[in-house]
Amino acid sequence: MSDISIRYQTGEPQNLEKRFAARAAEMLPSEIRSLFAVASRPEIVSLAGGMPNLSALPMEMMAEVIKELILTNGSEALQYGSGQGHPKLREQICDVMALEGIRANPDDVVITTGSQQALDLISRIFIDPGDVVLVEAPSYVGALGTFRQYEASVVHVEMDNDGLVPDSLRAAIKSVRATGRKIKFLYLIPNYQNPTGVCLPADRRTEILSICRAEEIFVVEDNPYGLLGFDKPSPNAMRAEDSENVIYLGSFSKTIAPGLRVGWALVPQSLKDKLVISSESSILCPSNFTQLTISSYLADQPWRDQIASFCELYKVRRDAMLESLEQHFPAEAKWTKPGGGFYVWVNLPAEIDTKALMPKAIVAKVAYVPGSAFYADGLGSWSMRLSYCHPTPERIREGVKALGGVIKQEMSRRGTALT
Amino acid sequence: MSDISIRYQTGEPQNLEKRFAARAAEMLPSEIRSLFAVASRPEIVSLAGGMPNLSALPMEMMAEVIKELILTNGSEALQYGSGQGHPKLREQICDVMALEGIRANPDDVVITTGSQQALDLISRIFIDPGDVVLVEAPSYVGALGTFRQYEASVVHVEMDNDGLVPDSLRAAIKSVRATGRKIKFLYLIPNYQNPTGVCLPADRRTEILSICRAEEIFVVEDNPYGLLGFDKPSPNAMRAEDSENVIYLGSFSKTIAPGLRVGWALVPQSLKDKLVISSESSILCPSNFTQLTISSYLADQPWRDQIASFCELYKVRRDAMLESLEQHFPAEAKWTKPGGGFYVWVNLPAEIDTKALMPKAIVAKVAYVPGSAFYADGLGSWSMRLSYCHPTPERIREGVKALGGVIKQEMSRRGTALT
Repeated sequence: MSDISIRYQTGEPQNLEKRFAARAAEMLPSEIRSLFAVASRPEIVSLAGGMPNLSALPMEMMAEVIKELILTNGSEALQYGSGQGHPKLREQICDVMALEGIRANPDDVVITTGSQQALDLISRIFIDPGDVVLVEAPSYVGALGTFRQYEASVVHVEMDNDGLVPDSLRAAIKSVRATGRKIKFLYLIPNYQNPTGVCLPADRRTEILSICRAEEIFVVEDNPYGLLGFDKPSPNAMRAEDSENVIYLGSFSKTIAPGLRVGWALVPQSLKDKLVISSESSILCPSNFTQLTISSYLADQPWRDQIASFCELYKVRRDAMLESLEQHFPAEAKWTKPGGGFYVWVNLPAEIDTKALMPKAIVAKVAYVPGSAFYADGLGSWSMRLSYCHPTPERIREGVKALGGVIKQEMSRRGTALT
Repeated sequence: MSDISIRYQTGEPQNLEKRFAARAAEMLPSEIRSLFAVASRPEIVSLAGGMPNLSALPMEMMAEVIKELILTNGSEALQYGSGQGHPKLREQICDVMALEGIRANPDDVVITTGSQQALDLISRIFIDPGDVVLVEAPSYVGALGTFRQYEASVVHVEMDNDGLVPDSLRAAIKSVRATGRKIKFLYLIPNYQNPTGVCLPADRRTEILSICRAEEIFVVEDNPYGLLGFDKPSPNAMRAEDSENVIYLGSFSKTIAPGLRVGWALVPQSLKDKLVISSESSILCPSNFTQLTISSYLADQPWRDQIASFCELYKVRRDAMLESLEQHFPAEAKWTKPGGGFYVWVNLPAEIDTKALMPKAIVAKVAYVPGSAFYADGLGSWSMRLSYCHPTPERIREGVKALGGVIKQEMSRRGTALT
C-alpha cells in the first residue's frame, strides 16, 4: 500500500488555478459527494445511493458470456471500435427500445460511456453560457452538474404526483422568454423519476410534446428506469410519439450492470454526425469490450426474464420502504408512491432542514440524500430522497425506523409536531 | 438486419442546427475519418490506422483473467465505481510509470476512458475560447480535434529529427504573446511521437521544461508509446523531472489493449479535484469492469514480458517498413527512423499533394494518412504518415512498394523527379 502522504515533489509549485478557463468556476463538488463516503460505511443503512442491486445477476452466466466473447471474438472486443458504437449492439438497442413503443433506425443510435456521457455531449453541442435549460423540480443531480459545467442557467418546472405539470411548463417558458433568455431544451425523466419516483402519464407526455414543438424547444428524455415498472408497464416513451423533437437517452446500467458503462442516445438524423464527432473528441470510441459483452448477453441470455427478476427484487424493497414509512414516519410527512424505479421522495414540515439533519441521521446509522441536492436554486431544504434499490428489505425497515425517530425527535425539539 | 433506409418518422422535422452552441461550429469531421472506411477494406494494405496489433496478446489467458474476475469479484466489477478510478489500479499505474522514472502518489492519478478523455477534460478545465495551445508540428490529430472543440487557437512549434526544437518554442511563445493572446499549455508526445515517430532526447526535455516553467506555461506530456522502445529504453518521462508543471497522460491502449478504454492522467495535486469533478460530469465514473480487468492482468500476468513481445512484433514491422522505403521510395523522399512506436513520417517534394494523391493510392491498394491531417494550419500537404503497427511485414512491403510506385509516377507526371 502506498503512503498517500508522500508526494515526491520534483519541481517548483505552480499556480495552475489562475490559468483555469471561466467554466472551471462551475466545476464544484455536488452536495452528495462527501455524503457517499460516510454512507458507504458498513454500519450505516444507506438509503442514499442509487446503485442497482446486482444480487439478482447470475455471475456464473456473466463469466461464461464474457469468456466466450474473448475466446471467439477477442481481437475485435479488445480493439478500437467505431466512434458511433458497435453496429450490432445498435441494432439490439433498437429491439430494447421497441419494448417502450419506439421504432428506430440503428443508424440514429450513438453509444456512449453511460448515458451521462450523452448528457455531456448534448450539453456541449447546444449550450452557450447563459442559455436556459428547463428541468423538473427536483431533478437528477448528475444532470444539474453537467448543465452547470456548460454554464447553463437551470430553471426548474413544478411537478406534482403525476410528474411535470404542463401549465407550469407554459408559465416557465413565458417567464424565461420575458427576460430575453434563450431556452435550449427541456430535460426530463418521465419514468420513475430520479429523485421523486413519479411517472408521467401518457396524456401529459402528449401535451408536453405539443407545448415543446410549438415553442421550438426540444425534449431530452432520459429513461434509465423505464423497464423497471413493478405494477404495470410504463407508458410509451415520448420518443415513440415524436422522433424529430426528442433526444432519447437510454442505459443498461439499471437493466444489466452499471460497471459496463454502456448507455446510448437516439437522436434526430440531423444531429447524429455532430454527436459522433463530439464523442470521438471526448473518448475516441466507446469500449468494444463492454459493448460486445452486452451484445452477447442480449443475444444469448434471457434478458427480459432477468429484467423481470430485477423488478421483483426492487418491488419487494419498495413495499418494505412504503410500509415502514407508514409505520415510522410522522403524520406530517408526505411521500411519493413509486410504481417502479429506485426512489421515494419525502416532504417534511418546512421547518426541518434535511441537510442540517444529516449528522443526526448518521449517528442513528442511516443515510439519505438531502432534497437541496436536486435543485439548482437552493430549494428542497425540507425534502429528502430515499433509495430502496440496494439494501435488503430488513435493512430498509431498520433504516426507515431509525430515520423516522430522528425526524420525530427534531420535530418535537422544534415544536413542529402536531402532538 | 434492419433496413437503415427506414426512419419511422413520427413528428415534424425540426431545425435543431439553429439552436446549436457557438462551439458546435468547430465540431467538424477530421480529414482521416472518411479515409478509414476505405482503408479498412480487406484488399487495401492500410498504412493509415494506428490500431495496435493484438496478435501477440494471448486470448486464452485474457479470457481466464476476466472469467476469474467476474466469478470472484463480479459484484464490484459490474457496479458503479469511484469517479477518480479504482484505488488498486491507481496504485498499479504508479508501478507502471516508475518504469519511466516517475515517482507518483496514487491519489494524484485520475483514471479516464482512454487518455483521450483526459485530453478532453484538461481542455475543458483550461481553455477559454481564443486561448492558445502550443503543439508540435505536426501533432496528434485527436488532440487537435479536441482543442478545436474548445475553441482554442492551435499554434504549431517546429520539430526536427530530435523532436520539438527549444529555440523554436522560445520564438513561438514570444510571437504569440506579442499578439496579446494567452498561452494555456504546451501539448507534446515526447516518445515515438504520433505522427512522426521521433523521440525527444533527455537534454531537450530538461530545456523545454525550463522554458515552460520560466514562461508559466504548463506541459501536457502525452505518453502512450513510451514503453514501446525497440532499440533502447526511452529517456525518463518529463514528469519525472517536474511533478508540479507537468500533466502526464498515460494509456493501456498500446501496452495491453485499446478496447478496454483505460487511460489516466497524473496531475499536480492542486488540479486533482477539478479533474475528478469534470470527469464525473462527463461519464460519472470509468468502468470498474475494464479497470479491474487491467488490474487483475497486471497483478497476475507477466505484463512486462508481454510488452517485450509487443516491442519485438513492432520492431520487425518497423524494419520491414524502413527497408522497403529504401528500396521503393524515390531518392527525393525523406523519412524518420523511429526507435519505437507505430509511425514513420515521410516528406516528399513540395509539389506532391498527398491528399490529392490518395485516390491513386487506393487504386493501387494502399492507404496512408495525408500530412495535412496533423496540422491545424493547413501545412503538411507534401507529407504523409505511414503506420507499420498493424499489417504483417509482407503486407507492409507490398504496400510500401505500391505506394512508392504511385509517388514516382506522380513525380514523373509533374516533372519533379531528378531522373
